[in-house]
Amino acid sequence: MKPALIVVDMIKDNVGMHLSRRASSEFVKIIPPLQSVLGECRRRKIPVVFANDSFLEGDLLFSGQMKPHAIRGTEGVEVIPELGPESSDTVLEKRRMSAFFKTDLDLTLRLWQIDTILVAGIATHGCVYLTAMDGFAHDFRVVILEDCCAAHRAEIHEAFLGMMRAHPLEPIVRVMKQEELFELADVPPRI
Amino acid sequence: MKPALIVVDMIKDNVGMHLSRRASSEFVKIIPPLQSVLGECRRRKIPVVFANDSFLEGDLLFSGQMKPHAIRGTEGVEVIPELGPESSDTVLEKRRMSAFFKTDLDLTLRLWQIDTILVAGIATHGCVYLTAMDGFAHDFRVVILEDCCAAHRAEIHEAFLGMMRAHPLEPIVRVMKQEELFELADVPPRI
Amino acid sequence: MKPALIVVDMIKDNVGMHLSRRASSEFVKIIPPLQSVLGECRRRKIPVVFANDSFLEGDLLFSGQMKPHAIRGTEGVEVIPELGPESSDTVLEKRRMSAFFKTDLDLTLRLWQIDTILVAGIATHGCVYLTAMDGFAHDFRVVILEDCCAAHRAEIHEAFLGMMRAHPLEPIVRVMKQEELFELADVPPRI
Amino acid sequence: MKPALIVVDMIKDNVGMHLSRRASSEFVKIIPPLQSVLGECRRRKIPVVFANDSFLEGDLLFSGQMKPHAIRGTEGVEVIPELGPESSDTVLEKRRMSAFFKTDLDLTLRLWQIDTILVAGIATHGCVYLTAMDGFAHDFRVVILEDCCAAHRAEIHEAFLGMMRAHPLEPIVRVMKQEELFELADVPPRI
Repeated sequence: MKPALIVVDMIKDNVGMHLSRRASSEFVKIIPPLQSVLGECRRRKIPVVFANDSFLEGDLLFSGQMKPHAIRGTEGVEVIPELGPESSDTVLEKRRMSAFFKTDLDLTLRLWQIDTILVAGIATHGCVYLTAMDGFAHDFRVVILEDCCAAHRAEIHEAFLGMMRAHPLEPIVRVMKQEELFELADVPPRI
Repeated sequence: MKPALIVVDMIKDNVGMHLSRRASSEFVKIIPPLQSVLGECRRRKIPVVFANDSFLEGDLLFSGQMKPHAIRGTEGVEVIPELGPESSDTVLEKRRMSAFFKTDLDLTLRLWQIDTILVAGIATHGCVYLTAMDGFAHDFRVVILEDCCAAHRAEIHEAFLGMMRAHPLEPIVRVMKQEELFELADVPPRI
Repeated sequence: MKPALIVVDMIKDNVGMHLSRRASSEFVKIIPPLQSVLGECRRRKIPVVFANDSFLEGDLLFSGQMKPHAIRGTEGVEVIPELGPESSDTVLEKRRMSAFFKTDLDLTLRLWQIDTILVAGIATHGCVYLTAMDGFAHDFRVVILEDCCAAHRAEIHEAFLGMMRAHPLEPIVRVMKQEELFELADVPPRI
Repeated sequence: MKPALIVVDMIKDNVGMHLSRRASSEFVKIIPPLQSVLGECRRRKIPVVFANDSFLEGDLLFSGQMKPHAIRGTEGVEVIPELGPESSDTVLEKRRMSAFFKTDLDLTLRLWQIDTILVAGIATHGCVYLTAMDGFAHDFRVVILEDCCAAHRAEIHEAFLGMMRAHPLEPIVRVMKQEELFELADVPPRI
């Protein structure tokens, strides 16, 4: 396995604890397991990509009930400092839910000879799922790290992962805890 | 509203009633409402697109538990005859779950000046959801026609639509019955 | 080298000798060398892809001086019978000049583990060049087969190839005669 | 006309006058006309996008005779200070020759309701042409600003523009001097 870790939307405006002070408790809960998986990946030289919402004003996205947020060029699009980025990490700005949509992510992952993406972040049924499935569409194997992603309500997160575990694409797209992942025989070892 | 109807994966190999004789009863159930919405769209000159799985042998898709099916050039990729296609419909072959992935669908819809896609077919949480969200990513408004889509198990279909109804993108991406849709003031009238 | 041959736009409406009886003599001239390269590729199990214009009515393309032609569903989009297709060939319909634009060609070539595209057809400075450069953009090495492509005027063809020979991407993107290509040590042998 | 100006690759490593002190005299020549068109566009509220090479180490691009340059994160990918960027301009990093390839440029231009791109920069037959034609592929009308683009040799620039003037896509894709452009009746006026 030649994996890369994609951390989706763990930015100040989306996690909500830094600027708006309206943190989602579900989102805050995954910070420690994310710190753990990030540390482990960095020690194993598994590339880390932070894929962050970075929207333009006036976007169709904001024509419904969703309020403008994560506007490109503002502090709100920064990764929360609890997680990074470190100098070896890659920061990718995305305009839509999938980290692959209109970005160079597939090109970069192929350059790095990645065959598997490890997907984490928020929200499980939104940007995490869409990034995971779009990664598969681009011919990458996918691991959704269940202890490292969250939805704003725990029951949605759970229901979604249950659905994924029964998915016909299993095990090309599969759900694992980080602990299980790092026990696999073919995951890169610590250096 | 300038809509187009996208019917996803209602092909012989996927519905399963024509070639394998292992029809999914959930999938068969939506044939009458799909016939109804297709008739209504054709009478209103709303373009109809059948977006059909059409895979190549050896695809990554078939390296897990999913058996080869819907192979390009075989009878299995044909729309079930209960639905079409009629001569005014468009048939689009797709290689991945989203009807927009590596296809000219967005180009076609913009040429036709479409602003809203009506998404129907199978499966609700798979190709229907991914086509819906990828349509939004391409700047189209989305209506998921709840009575015209299905998952292999009714509870997954229901759980998924419940999640969509609470989605922050609502009403840019929304869930409606066809009856509700055709009652909207701005839907094209019968001609 | 793991090559595939991409024959661009050698269709009835574009070559012009079958339907309109206004054949371009430059285009007709490359039919014999194309027959030769096609035969050689088929004997060596090098995949052959015909990438053909296939336009929709009303397209922006036709809002200038270019008259509607190569309309999807008409006889004009068929490969000229002098060249194929044979049953082992792949036919790809494209909406824009590059054979990669909004098509699944890159996905298919990667599935086949292709690393080099051989580009032939018409016109040298138009769809051939744009397909070649877009192929490079998708991380394929490129050989433009100079004796198998043409522009409507020989001097444009020549000027263009001269420019390509001095291109900074050389030899990732290079210009060769088919004879030179088949003399390379690493080209697949006849089977 | 609702235009945006795309200035291609006028960065320190490519123009060559700032870091390597090996400026191309052809490239330096277009700095004054580019300053003029940039000033005029800013005064008319025509959006300005700098589309800049921004490569990763190890890229296929560098496996031929082209030396590594314009590496993401280095000073070499910055727009030359003679041109900008100003705070109202947009800077876009690109991985391939076309400014549209694996970027969000088409999404941005549609959000801004742009219908025409004005393309300038270097090199005329390379990134300028490929950005122009890819812009057309994405349904934008195109003006190549002949006095604001250059190739490393003047005769290549001239030959290329001659070819473009005789292009069948004319006038959807056309070649103009900035003076001619600003005399058009439908170009946005100074504010």
